Order: sequence, then structure tokens, then C-alpha cells
Amino acid sequence: MPALITNYSSEPEYSSYELRQKIRRGEIKGSTSGLARTMQANLIVLPSRYAKDFRNLCLRNPVPCPLLEYTSRGDYTSRLALDSDLRTDIPAYNVFKDGKLVSRRKSNIMDEWTDDHVGFLIGCSYSFETALKEAGLEPMCSKKNMAVPMYVTNIPLNSAGVFSGYYVVSMRSYKPCDIPRVREITGQYIKQHGEPIAWGWEGAEKIGVKRKIEMGLVDFGDFVDIPDDEVPVFWGCGVTPQVAVQESRLKGVVMSHLPGYVYASFFDSITLYIQPFPVTASPSIPGAAYAQSRIDQDTIGANAVTSRFPLFFAVVVIVEEKFFTSSKSLIRICPQFNVCHGSGS
Amino acid sequence: MPALITNYSSEPEYSSYELRQKIRRGEIKGSTSGLARTMQANLIVLPSRYAKDFRNLCLRNPVPCPLLEYTSRGDYTSRLALDSDLRTDIPAYNVFKDGKLVSRRKSNIMDEWTDDHVGFLIGCSYSFETALKEAGLEPMCSKKNMAVPMYVTNIPLNSAGVFSGYYVVSMRSYKPCDIPRVREITGQYIKQHGEPIAWGWEGAEKIGVKRKIEMGLVDFGDFVDIPDDEVPVFWGCGVTPQVAVQESRLKGVVMSHLPGYVYASFFDSITLYIQPFPVTASPSIPGAAYAQSRIDQDTIGANAVTSRFPLFFAVVVIVEEKFFTSSKSLIRICPQFNVCHGSGS
Repeated sequence: MPALITNYSSEPEYSSYELRQKIRRGEIKGSTSGLARTMQANLIVLPSRYAKDFRNLCLRNPVPCPLLEYTSRGDYTSRLALDSDLRTDIPAYNVFKDGKLVSRRKSNIMDEWTDDHVGFLIGCSYSFETALKEAGLEPMCSKKNMAVPMYVTNIPLNSAGVFSGYYVVSMRSYKPCDIPRVREITGQYIKQHGEPIAWGWEGAEKIGVKRKIEMGLVDFGDFVDIPDDEVPVFWGCGVTPQVAVQESRLKGVVMSHLPGYVYASFFDSITLYIQPFPVTASPSIPGAAYAQSRIDQDTIGANAVTSRFPLFFAVVVIVEEKFFTSSKSLIRICPQFNVCHGSGS
Repeated sequence: MPALITNYSSEPEYSSYELRQKIRRGEIKGSTSGLARTMQANLIVLPSRYAKDFRNLCLRNPVPCPLLEYTSRGDYTSRLALDSDLRTDIPAYNVFKDGKLVSRRKSNIMDEWTDDHVGFLIGCSYSFETALKEAGLEPMCSKKNMAVPMYVTNIPLNSAGVFSGYYVVSMRSYKPCDIPRVREITGQYIKQHGEPIAWGWEGAEKIGVKRKIEMGLVDFGDFVDIPDDEVPVFWGCGVTPQVAVQESRLKGVVMSHLPGYVYASFFDSITLYIQPFPVTASPSIPGAAYAQSRIDQDTIGANAVTSRFPLFFAVVVIVEEKFFTSSKSLIRICPQFNVCHGSGS
């Protein structure tokens, strides 16, 4: 199994900390893709009365809606990045009122965010696109510098309270012989939609999107031609919860990033120290910020904790990228986690 | 929100410990439903080479396939019950070889279980049926003492390695006015399929089972008539992984309980002690058995840990029912967990 710590082929222009600062100051207004060595995320901000149902929607639909973090009521900081502000650190926001889009491409949501809002961060496929590229499997949309094609399918979400809807998928095309490797690589990105949910023209038919592709249509993103020797491959997509939220016609003000176009760049290199009991409370890492209660347990979930240690102890330590660009050995601790991003060795 | 600790209206005949002993000795050969005050589970036993993919299948499809526990390679004990043996403690087993059913209703799988097998326990709806009954919402199948009707839907599972397939649902009918309450009650049983995934005739159409119901058919279980003033309501069903396993035509010997008919009764009253760091390693509870690494992290997952405490520490303490039938106060610790079964107050 390839290590999940990516050896970046080119150095990013900024640390994620610098990038957030620049976005906040309005110096970057476009897509953050490729600008920093970080996980990125979809943002949804909801009135607090919908928070429980929305969290359940994510937990019941982890493939299209992988929940990374949610804030306390009124709190606009993220524990997955130092000094971050969810109201200002994304280049473009959308604002909805009573289910209708009332403001598009806002540069911040300082005026809209109230003490009653809860922010949710949902995994995005940025991470596995980089890995695909480095395996010689760069998707056509990425090569052509276009947005990935996205389709609303016929697959119903598992309902949760006020929320229901259908899966949205992103589509990238591959030669049939490459699909096993594509499945293997992306399957490791548990919190960024994981392996594909369908592939091939038969798969396209099954999830109800074949005709749209044949007609050259997309529901979101850009249409990208499929070469004759390739077939479509479909992943769960982080636009799913945004569509579910819009279709649920929630009362009040809802906010999001601009779908299919701009993604949050909150996530710094994150290291998970998994230790059997007793655990050291304060490993002396300069700049380490202990993850607090609000980082979703699933973030440290699935793979490693229970299969390797006798009790369920874990400390999540978040280390700002800026602190360890010179100490490359620091972040080679938990190869099973896809949140272990770092500078490799 | 109603407490999840059930106040049983009638005393069960046996403790779950006694029940397992009786099943092991061959004194009980039928359904275990109602015989003990325990969670029950679906069992699937696979050659170890399929274990990783199957675990991912469960984690990617938590509503139909809620993973409760899986064993180490070759280990036939469950940490969710004392002195249990997965090879003998279910009244009836099925055995498959290379994808074909080769033996049905076996009383044990002592000869078939090898050092290379891994056992998986999947949540079952027994728990919420009791809660529905106690809320005056007993399903018709339960009233008539019939097996719940089950249908294979058109909803594709999120694929995982060698596994793919479609959701199986269980169906119970309700008056439309009762559906919100039914959703609320069952929604708390996160590891037993949770709230319904579809309801009403429109829902039946959407998931592709309307015509089968109208024709009086079932895929598993017994057909149960729907009164004129009621509509069908559908839950994810623990037969889903069993069908996926069969359809994947695995090489080697696969074992399960008899689907739709007999369920495991391994689960004793389980208490999760969630404590902020530092945690006490050995609370002095007579009979307490510490949960070891193999209890799935998701079992203690979703609801409470991260929302209530600053770090991710949890000790899972399993307390045999026999030890606290006289100390009813012991098990009122974590109302958010649906694994907190106990004798109430």
C-alpha cells in the first residue's frame, strides 16, 4: 500500500497559514487549488436548530458527506487550522435566505454570521486528485484546468430529520485497465469520498446519469469529453450536502462556499498520535495545538485506532505547517490516516 | 428526547448469559427474539483475505451495515459478551462454499471455522422493535408473530473492494400521522439502522419496491398486509451485507446465521464510560470486562464522545447482565448511546 504522505512534486507557493492570511486580506480571490500543501474542505453554515439533523445526515451518508469538523453554536473558528476564521478565509461565499440564493461570490460573511450559526466542514476530493496525478493518473479536467463534471444521481441519501435528497457525484474518466489502481489510490482517502461508487457505462446507467453524459450535460462544473478508450468513473461529491440543504428549504440564513469552484483551505498538516494508555498529555512539539471536542470523532476514525491498540485512546495533535517545514521527520507517524499530510521525506 | 434505556414491560426468561449457554447446549433451536434483554446481531464469517474490504463496506454503508464488532483472524470469541463462542451460540447457521449455500440450519460451525476466518457482527433491528412496541407502535409483523418483510431495493451500496450490491430494507407499515414519532424513536438506534430511509407509497416507488409489495411478494421474511389507512416505512436491513457477500461469489467458506429468521444473541448490557483524560484504568465493577481492540470504534462513535469532552478518551466497559440485575443504578451513564441497554431505573 502506498504511503498516504504525499511527496509533492512541486513546492506550493504559500504555507496554508500564509494562504489564509492572504485570502482574509482579499489578496487572493480565485480557487485555492494547488496554492498550498493542505487538505481542503466544503463549508456549510446553518442555523443551530438544524445542526443535529445535518450532523446525522453526514454520519448516515459518509461517502458523499464526510464530516471533518463542526463548530459550537456561534463559533467561527476551526480547530483544524491555527488562527482561522470561517467567515473570511475562503475567497468566495454564497448566502441563502429561506432556501433562496440571495448573494453570490461574497468575499466574506462577517455580516451574515450570527451567534446562532454552526459551521460544518466536509471533506473534498482535492487530496486524491493530487495523489492520482502523482501516480500518472491525472484526471482530464485537471489536465485541462477545468472544474470536475458533477451530476445529481438517482441514489437517495439516507434521510436524517429535515434532510433528504440524492447523491451528487463527481466524474473523471479512465481506461478500464486503470480503474483497479484508481480505486486503490482513492480508496485510502476515507474522509474525501474514498473509492468510486460506480464506474463504466453500466455504472452510469445504474446511477441515472448516462443520458446526461451522452448529451454533453453537467449539473455542476464543466463538461469534459470522455475519450473513446475511456469510461466514466464516479465518486461521492461534497456538493451533495449543499444540494440537500438547498432542497430542504431551511428557514433562515444558510451560507456556503461557491460550489464546484472555490474550496476552503483550512486544513493544515495534521498529525494523529495514537498511543496506548497511558498517554502523554503534552508532547513537546512547538506550535502543537490540541484538538478539542469539536473535531469529529470520525476524523480519527475508521482505520487505525481500534485495530492496533488495546483501548480507545487518541490524542489529536495539530501541527501548523509553518512549524515543521524544516523538520521533515515529524509527520511520519500514522500512515493509515489520510489526514496525515506532510512534507514527506 | 426519550431515554434510550428501555424499561422492559415484562421480564425476559433468561439472562443473556444463560441464553447463550442454553443455545450452546442445544436446548434452544428457534428464534431468540424476546428471550433475553439484549441487543442482537447479524453474523457473517469470512476468509481473512476479504476482511478489510468487508469492513470498508460496512464503514461506507453504515445504515444497512452497522458494524458492531469484528474478530481477529481465527478468533471466535466476542468481546461484547462474556464466555461467548461465535461457533456455537446461535441456534442456526448457514454455510456457503465458493458462493453456494452448502449447508442450512446447522446447529454449530465448529468444523467449518478455521484459523483463517474473521467474524463480523452487524446491528439488528430487534432493539428498536421493543421501543416501538413500548411506544404503542408495535409493528404488524410483531403483533402477528411473523418475520418482518424484506425487500432488495434499487439503491446501490457504496462499493468497497470486492464488494458491491444493493440495499436490502425491512418494511413495517404505519399511519402517516405516526411516522414522525416512528422516525424519532428509531432514529436513536444509530447502530441498528437508525431512522427509516424511505416511507409512503412514493418512497416505495423511489426505492423500487412498490410493485413487489402490491403483488404481495417479499424477497425475505413473510408478506404482511398493509391496512388501508397505513403506508409502508422502510429501514436499512442487516440482510444487506449477507446478500452482498453471497453476490460477490467469494472463494472459500463463508458462514452466517439463518437470514431473516434467527439472530445472534451475543450482546449483553453494555455500558460505555466516557471520561475526560486522565481516565481511571480499572473501575472496580464486579464482572466488568474491558473491551479490547476489536470492538469497532464506531460502536462508541457518533454521538457523545466528541461533543462532550475535550479529548477522545473512552473506556468501554462491558458488564454482564447477570452481575447487575440487582443494581439497577449502574447502567444510567450514557443516555446518548444506543448500546446502553439495561434494566432502567
